[in-house]
Amino acid sequence: MGKKKTFKPSKELPLGFVDRKEKELLIRDFIISNIKEVMIKYGFQYLETPSFEYTDSIGKFLPDKDRPGEGVFSFKDENKWLSLRYDLTAPLARYVAKNYLEIPKPFKRYQLGTVWRNEKPGPGRYREFLQFDADYVGTKNLQADAELCILISEILEKCGLDKKDYTVKISSRKVTDKLFEKLKITSKDQISSTLRALDKIDRLGLDEVKKLLGEGRKDKSGDYTKGANLNKEQIKTIVDNLNNKKSNSDDVEEIIKIFQAYNFNNYKFDPSVIRGLEYYTGPIFEVNLNFEVKNLKKQTIQFGSIGGGGRYDNLVNNFGNLDCPATGISIGLDRLVFALMQKKDFKIKSTRPAIICVFDKTKIKEYIDILVKLRSSNISSEIYPGEGKLKKQMEYANKIGSPAVILYGDDEIKSGKITLKNLKTGNENSIKIEDLANEIKKLLWEDNKSF
Amino acid sequence: MGKKKTFKPSKELPLGFVDRKEKELLIRDFIISNIKEVMIKYGFQYLETPSFEYTDSIGKFLPDKDRPGEGVFSFKDENKWLSLRYDLTAPLARYVAKNYLEIPKPFKRYQLGTVWRNEKPGPGRYREFLQFDADYVGTKNLQADAELCILISEILEKCGLDKKDYTVKISSRKVTDKLFEKLKITSKDQISSTLRALDKIDRLGLDEVKKLLGEGRKDKSGDYTKGANLNKEQIKTIVDNLNNKKSNSDDVEEIIKIFQAYNFNNYKFDPSVIRGLEYYTGPIFEVNLNFEVKNLKKQTIQFGSIGGGGRYDNLVNNFGNLDCPATGISIGLDRLVFALMQKKDFKIKSTRPAIICVFDKTKIKEYIDILVKLRSSNISSEIYPGEGKLKKQMEYANKIGSPAVILYGDDEIKSGKITLKNLKTGNENSIKIEDLANEIKKLLWEDNKSF
Repeated sequence: MGKKKTFKPSKELPLGFVDRKEKELLIRDFIISNIKEVMIKYGFQYLETPSFEYTDSIGKFLPDKDRPGEGVFSFKDENKWLSLRYDLTAPLARYVAKNYLEIPKPFKRYQLGTVWRNEKPGPGRYREFLQFDADYVGTKNLQADAELCILISEILEKCGLDKKDYTVKISSRKVTDKLFEKLKITSKDQISSTLRALDKIDRLGLDEVKKLLGEGRKDKSGDYTKGANLNKEQIKTIVDNLNNKKSNSDDVEEIIKIFQAYNFNNYKFDPSVIRGLEYYTGPIFEVNLNFEVKNLKKQTIQFGSIGGGGRYDNLVNNFGNLDCPATGISIGLDRLVFALMQKKDFKIKSTRPAIICVFDKTKIKEYIDILVKLRSSNISSEIYPGEGKLKKQMEYANKIGSPAVILYGDDEIKSGKITLKNLKTGNENSIKIEDLANEIKKLLWEDNKSF
Repeated sequence: MGKKKTFKPSKELPLGFVDRKEKELLIRDFIISNIKEVMIKYGFQYLETPSFEYTDSIGKFLPDKDRPGEGVFSFKDENKWLSLRYDLTAPLARYVAKNYLEIPKPFKRYQLGTVWRNEKPGPGRYREFLQFDADYVGTKNLQADAELCILISEILEKCGLDKKDYTVKISSRKVTDKLFEKLKITSKDQISSTLRALDKIDRLGLDEVKKLLGEGRKDKSGDYTKGANLNKEQIKTIVDNLNNKKSNSDDVEEIIKIFQAYNFNNYKFDPSVIRGLEYYTGPIFEVNLNFEVKNLKKQTIQFGSIGGGGRYDNLVNNFGNLDCPATGISIGLDRLVFALMQKKDFKIKSTRPAIICVFDKTKIKEYIDILVKLRSSNISSEIYPGEGKLKKQMEYANKIGSPAVILYGDDEIKSGKITLKNLKTGNENSIKIEDLANEIKKLLWEDNKSF
């Protein structure tokens, strides 16, 4: 019992999870409002599936199957296993299968939601992400694939990116299928290990990926991943083909024609776009940011992909005999926020309240009257919410970045005027109560101009 | 292997989880935008903690400790246990403890986020909720408690509720503390069982709660919950006191004075407000909706509480010797959405796209030109995204609730005019391409008027 009493819970977060503060969240909200506007304009429906699904509904398509715990967070619930979704595509397939008769065909939906990966924790590797997905379900029409690339571009440009800041790269699963056929790589396991290995070039570099294409690779921590067991010639041919400039794939060519009809030219065919997930069957795409970003260690990095997607014509079919070709795209919003926060000339406004200082607790009614007036003029404001003296109140105001404090002490109450102190300039002005809201608005406006 | 091939994953969702569709999500977005506006006006900072915390950081304060699995979803991660948060207060306490030196004091933060309860699944009992929380940390000032009640009211009124539609009920943990002292109920376990039992009156009714105050109660499924083991007289006194009209508690009286200074009068002292969580130490509040709502079985119910909160002066202190009194309020957004969806005269606009029909795939460039024009005028529109003939296209347009289809076949291309078919009236009009955007805008405007 004595021991129990001195137990102190941990103040730390588990590895791979973070707290997010106002600036980051405001940028995220800005991106999300742009996404919603574009989604409405393009005619998508808003859907939300829950965080949990039965493991057997979504557990079969994960890229890192070979990891312990299979990369998902799972619980035993009565007699069945539940998992937290690791993406928004597998739950969509389940939703479509469940509601097959009711949904319009094609079905265009978008979703915003958290996804979880039970990855090996490590610095800068998160286990929880906010994702945006847009999908067309029930059509083989490649117009859909093309529009996904175009709508992502529209979202990014609404968020303030120039054409030079990003590139949509496209390829097709058919490009690798053809190559594997030529190289007589036919085992399903070998194909999926090869795709997963190629998908890691950005992260591990070509040399490490070659090990994964061959016998296998030991990582820095000593963990060993079995390779795809390709021979040297197969590996060489595959690596050489990553530099092809022409797709020789009908689906890619048709999408490029549609891009041209839209006057969309911020794309590039790139056979090094692989996408690790097994379920892709046709065109695949990836969206890359081209501007320089610093990582948490302040090192400049090529930021790379913020998302991508592709066609998955058989995923819904796994739930029964439902012929339901589909294509979709995902954006990782946390990564996009992280990049935007570092983009020069990207600014977001955050509002901090003006503070009414408390000189005398018995005058609280007078302070509340001022507060109610300011708030009814939609001015962010508060009565100092603590219990400290004036010095503490000023420290608080500065700490939270308040634009101004409102001083209404005995002298002010006698004169019927308020002292407004601009915390940026330090200037104090004596102001009639009825003018206070306007004076603060002016001051906020000047503050904004100074960005 | 043969068996594996015919394996079909489940299309169903685990009990306690649901898919949410557009109408519900748009109402939720509307509420959230009102919340954010009010939070800025009141000077709160935006924060987001992750879904997972170390179990020992948040696992000690759950109301339903006696349930199997203790009511939370937990995983073993390397050597420590992680849990999905069951509320937003325990993670806030952890955040404050972790960042104690950096945060302003007092610290006013708000958070929107999903919380999970690993409850016994049953009809209408969810295991995943979206919650909104606002908290003042680092102050004993009862102005904070009063403002929480006032800001919630402002949010609800912004969402379209009248004063008669809701009531803020207040009481204090000190009211029950005094009563327990008088009745010589001193064991910590007995006190917390009593509070938890009293908190269930809304859900179980008084008779069942009396069983929980006494020896115990068997529920419909046969599960038995041990009672608080109070004697008959103690139970009678406690139940009688639930009808008191006057608080006799200093903190409640002071809050009522502050309400009066704000001209806020949509509150009521109500000692039947209990709040099940152990960590409350002072004023507690609950927000009730007063209008009639139908449940999923179409039965009219008194909807009751959509949220509440209270003062918890010792929660942060659990992490070490941090003197950090605090108070907060939570709203369950899913319940509020559910109620608003049923409120008469509550309407929300959803936008469905105008559809450009596909007569001839070789004319796709012409269709795209029209589409790009419409979208650049910010009109929700799409080229029919499937592969069906005209009849299927019209079925699709009707299914998704499209306001109009755009017909641009051979005749139209020859004449240089477009046929616009209003799907509400069935009227067709021949329109010059340059007038199309305006004609659709007019039609959407008329459509809105007809609500």
